[in-house]
Amino acid sequence: MRLRNKPWAQDKIDDNPQVVVADPENRKGKWHQIFENDNPICIEVGTGKGQFVTEMAKLHPNANFIGIERQKSIIVSAIDKINESGQKNVRLINVNAMQLINFFDKEEVHRIYLNFSDPWPKNRHEKRRLTHESFLEAYEEVLIPGGDIHFKTDNQDLFVYSLHSFSKYGLILNNVSLDLHRSDFKGNVMTEYEEKFSAMGNRIYRCEAMYRRK
Amino acid sequence: MRLRNKPWAQDKIDDNPQVVVADPENRKGKWHQIFENDNPICIEVGTGKGQFVTEMAKLHPNANFIGIERQKSIIVSAIDKINESGQKNVRLINVNAMQLINFFDKEEVHRIYLNFSDPWPKNRHEKRRLTHESFLEAYEEVLIPGGDIHFKTDNQDLFVYSLHSFSKYGLILNNVSLDLHRSDFKGNVMTEYEEKFSAMGNRIYRCEAMYRRK
Repeated sequence: MRLRNKPWAQDKIDDNPQVVVADPENRKGKWHQIFENDNPICIEVGTGKGQFVTEMAKLHPNANFIGIERQKSIIVSAIDKINESGQKNVRLINVNAMQLINFFDKEEVHRIYLNFSDPWPKNRHEKRRLTHESFLEAYEEVLIPGGDIHFKTDNQDLFVYSLHSFSKYGLILNNVSLDLHRSDFKGNVMTEYEEKFSAMGNRIYRCEAMYRRK
Repeated sequence: MRLRNKPWAQDKIDDNPQVVVADPENRKGKWHQIFENDNPICIEVGTGKGQFVTEMAKLHPNANFIGIERQKSIIVSAIDKINESGQKNVRLINVNAMQLINFFDKEEVHRIYLNFSDPWPKNRHEKRRLTHESFLEAYEEVLIPGGDIHFKTDNQDLFVYSLHSFSKYGLILNNVSLDLHRSDFKGNVMTEYEEKFSAMGNRIYRCEAMYRRK
């Protein structure tokens, strides 16, 4: 995505503390206080403009959603969507996914969503892919036993890489879709990008990768 | 595939002992005697009309290939192909894959090929799919440590099922192709079925599933 410089983005983030949690490092192990309930917490890593996380919050009022987005110029769009929705079970944090374990405690997260993550196609950037082993380790740190990753992408190479990475890590692949929009999968919530891309008739790939209980 | 009854099939099998090994149960642990060398042994389970196994034998003279086919009316076509090729590093056995461990010893097999296996689409037939857990156990019994399964199919549902089954068993998925004939995969040897099917423009799915060394 081409990013426009938005110098006012930090101001907007600061002006919306009810949506963008300003001190996520102080919330580790205490996210239930923010949501004021004990419902399961789900994270979207790379939440972009926020359509997915906002719609999921509407559809699943008995769960809490946290969108992670490091780009200030993008997260501002997600702020608007959440404010318009009026949903109380969704928050954003403006951090880098690499520091995930600084913000969440062991077993604090029920599920991780990865939607249309940056494919980082060059081999030398493999470590930046959100399905790289180092991220799978971080996700495991914060997920409940038997927790899972719900992953979708239009990028065939990233999907193939991820199937390898997930299986090498020992995760179990469930509900794989090789053509999501022409499958019998129910309850798909689309991202902004997915709406545009799938309108062109291209395939969306999806899978769930589940950690084994130890 | 619609099977014509070929009452002469058994006669043809009996007349070609140089191709169809008549007593595979007596060869367990001794296949190198048949091939008169110590080259690695690869098995195709469900070899059909034999084009794949015959071409592989030509392309890889330093390996030995054994095609397993339980249908007598089909294996006769494979006999012709092998006889025509003049290849000495390929044999057939007319047995059921379920009895694999009766015919091969521990670590006697380097690789297993599954090409366009019957998808057995009904849930109640899941156990008959050649990528079902019970088969993965049998393959593991006969494969070398770190041995692998090379699997391809045009059937999306069977592929999806197999990704689940492989990963659940703990296998590592390598070189996944979601559109084999439009990928940069080199050295693909086509089966008779694959030639017909891919000419219609449909996708072929392929992956390699590797057992972990213990």
